[in-house]
Amino acid sequence: MSQQAVKVGLIGLGTVGQGVIRVLQKNAEEIARRVGRPVQVTHASARDLGRPRDTDLAGITLVADALSLAREADIDVLVEVVGGQTVAKDAILAALARGKPVVTANKALLAENGNGIFAAAAEAGVPVAFEASVAGGIPIIKAIREGLAGNRIDSLAGIINGTCNYILSQMTVKGQSFADALADAQKLGYAEADPTFDVEGVDAAHKLSILASIAFGMPLSFPAVACEGITKVTAQDIQIAQTLGYRIKLLGIAKRSAAGVELRVHPTLIPDDQLLAKVDGVLNSVLVQGNAVGQVGFYGRGAGGDATASAVVADLVDVARGLGAEAHRHVPALAFQPAAVQALNLLPISAIESCYYLRLRVADEPGVLKGLTGILAEHDISIEAILQKEPRGDDDATVALITDRVAEQRFDAALAAIQALPFVREGAARIRVEHFKD
Amino acid sequence: MSQQAVKVGLIGLGTVGQGVIRVLQKNAEEIARRVGRPVQVTHASARDLGRPRDTDLAGITLVADALSLAREADIDVLVEVVGGQTVAKDAILAALARGKPVVTANKALLAENGNGIFAAAAEAGVPVAFEASVAGGIPIIKAIREGLAGNRIDSLAGIINGTCNYILSQMTVKGQSFADALADAQKLGYAEADPTFDVEGVDAAHKLSILASIAFGMPLSFPAVACEGITKVTAQDIQIAQTLGYRIKLLGIAKRSAAGVELRVHPTLIPDDQLLAKVDGVLNSVLVQGNAVGQVGFYGRGAGGDATASAVVADLVDVARGLGAEAHRHVPALAFQPAAVQALNLLPISAIESCYYLRLRVADEPGVLKGLTGILAEHDISIEAILQKEPRGDDDATVALITDRVAEQRFDAALAAIQALPFVREGAARIRVEHFKD
Repeated sequence: MSQQAVKVGLIGLGTVGQGVIRVLQKNAEEIARRVGRPVQVTHASARDLGRPRDTDLAGITLVADALSLAREADIDVLVEVVGGQTVAKDAILAALARGKPVVTANKALLAENGNGIFAAAAEAGVPVAFEASVAGGIPIIKAIREGLAGNRIDSLAGIINGTCNYILSQMTVKGQSFADALADAQKLGYAEADPTFDVEGVDAAHKLSILASIAFGMPLSFPAVACEGITKVTAQDIQIAQTLGYRIKLLGIAKRSAAGVELRVHPTLIPDDQLLAKVDGVLNSVLVQGNAVGQVGFYGRGAGGDATASAVVADLVDVARGLGAEAHRHVPALAFQPAAVQALNLLPISAIESCYYLRLRVADEPGVLKGLTGILAEHDISIEAILQKEPRGDDDATVALITDRVAEQRFDAALAAIQALPFVREGAARIRVEHFKD
Repeated sequence: MSQQAVKVGLIGLGTVGQGVIRVLQKNAEEIARRVGRPVQVTHASARDLGRPRDTDLAGITLVADALSLAREADIDVLVEVVGGQTVAKDAILAALARGKPVVTANKALLAENGNGIFAAAAEAGVPVAFEASVAGGIPIIKAIREGLAGNRIDSLAGIINGTCNYILSQMTVKGQSFADALADAQKLGYAEADPTFDVEGVDAAHKLSILASIAFGMPLSFPAVACEGITKVTAQDIQIAQTLGYRIKLLGIAKRSAAGVELRVHPTLIPDDQLLAKVDGVLNSVLVQGNAVGQVGFYGRGAGGDATASAVVADLVDVARGLGAEAHRHVPALAFQPAAVQALNLLPISAIESCYYLRLRVADEPGVLKGLTGILAEHDISIEAILQKEPRGDDDATVALITDRVAEQRFDAALAAIQALPFVREGAARIRVEHFKD
């Protein structure tokens, strides 16, 4: 243990940055026993260095400018947890240009600029590690990239946004509306003042594009992710889904088949006996299907300073072991050797096949079910379950049904025909259903 | 991809050995794209080479003697999946002595002889990888050893024997007796003709000792595992536990505190809202508690040729990347550097603290509850839940209760006093209860 410490330069002293310092401090002995030498933050930068912080910064050289830290500081590795695009990207590229490995938690940056960053890392022959970018403390990147390396990975599906999972869980347990559950989540600090990125599914789409690339060995393809948030999910749909034996979760789903790759984020009905359906609150969970292992599932905290720091520090331990190693010894950033990463055919959402949940408000009159089922039969769509609810108060009834697998395009054509029926009111809900059979 | 293949010598052509060949064949292209070169089994040995097998052995040099394969064959890495102690151990030590890395699935060998094997590996400066030894395809060794390397790991608990989990799940769902559920498991191939190793908890204890060592950085300590199987669990206890809001699982539990380390395998009541309680059938699951990440959970197939091969091949990919690297670049076998592995104080089972489920047959007469609760109060044991069931048919009633946390010794003293009460019949059941609060 007498060897020199690994010197870490840290960009960002927010929740995660302070978590990294705290975890490296409190677990210093364990970490040194693992690595064979200590790992210490020696330099740090933040937007406002004067702000009071709870974390002990003694012994850390504070630098006003992130870019000069990356360019000049005497460090072995750069940790980027400042977020955002411009400064983070410039600092990462500057460190790589100096041959310094990088650890980052920045999913938005990787999803949108990862291909360039990984190319720069491959050229420099040093790793860019990013376990903390997806699902917080769950070591899902390592699991897919290394732990399941013997598999052809066929699909993955994940609850990868804790804000949405919290809101949907509260709507399920308390029967709250989306707006009320969101307001509660904001009060508790689980949702931001402007929650758009989370509730519209953009954050989940960022993370999904990272998981899909390492699972399938393809370049990051964030713009190809079909993305639908949870703002239109109603307490009524959650309750009907429960009656039919399902839970509603916001999932990121990546699947590949002979036709191509599907990348999609949307509210999804899952059978309630699936473990994934039982992951509630702010927890994250990812289910991976490999052609040797079958289904493997992971769950844990997807956010929070210490949980995210757990992932950053795990990356630091890997990086510390690999310092100065030949490039071919590093696990490739996208799981496959850079030359073997292949663009795959990305399917538009209209081409996917899925089961569907459909909920309609209809006039309470004879012939409604006959009309509905007639149109579905015309479009060759089978019904797996159906539920008709008595009208309460007004004169509209509710019909909900779940279909068998059908191409999205065909389902949408049937839905358009159904909505043109004279007895069907406005405001249909259409939510995809997944079963994840092993 | 034009580089020379990694040459694998395989000892054992049973279910797992054939799985390894099959997975390396069917995923050859993906694996080569990950590693940067192909990975091929070039030599194999089995006890009976003449036995017909479904697997394509073309291109593999078959060797009658495992030891000569390990000693002489032109291989880069040895895979040992033959099981047992003597041949497996000799072959592994022979390969290490030649400086060849080893991949093994042999939990019994590692649990009982791992310290010597890892010492030999450290001396040789090459890795011994053993992902397949615990929980089949779930990458739990990698998760604990690398993915959670930033944590001080405080405890872990796992369903790590699929046979027992299948039997307990069937007893729960069908109300079967242990004997009937075991017979069904044997018919389906989930239990061996002689099921002792599984149902008495020995297999789980082997795996627990491996997990505990890498979690806590201590030598393998299989003899210190307190081990109790599932043969005495009754359908009645499972049903009463359900009424009280619990499931019964065979768990391997490792915990550390200031006092020392607990290592134990026993049937356990878990609250039914815990995800661990919902892992049924032959699935395995492990819950890890780290001081940064909080709780992280993993589940998947714990056995089967392809699932276990998934883990073996993942190890092969790691080993391939590290071939010829300096020793300090390898992840240490027990997660901590060999010199930093420390013997810890191992607590006897009498010293642990736990909640308890107690079920008694008692005479159906006044004063029973007063007598029972009086003794528990005398021993300063609080009751968390209690259930009295009407006698059916005969004149005995059933009383079941769950206690708060109490030292095992104190609980056993109270139990002895209770069993001496005149109205208490023979045949009390005592099962530990764990809550796994994050």
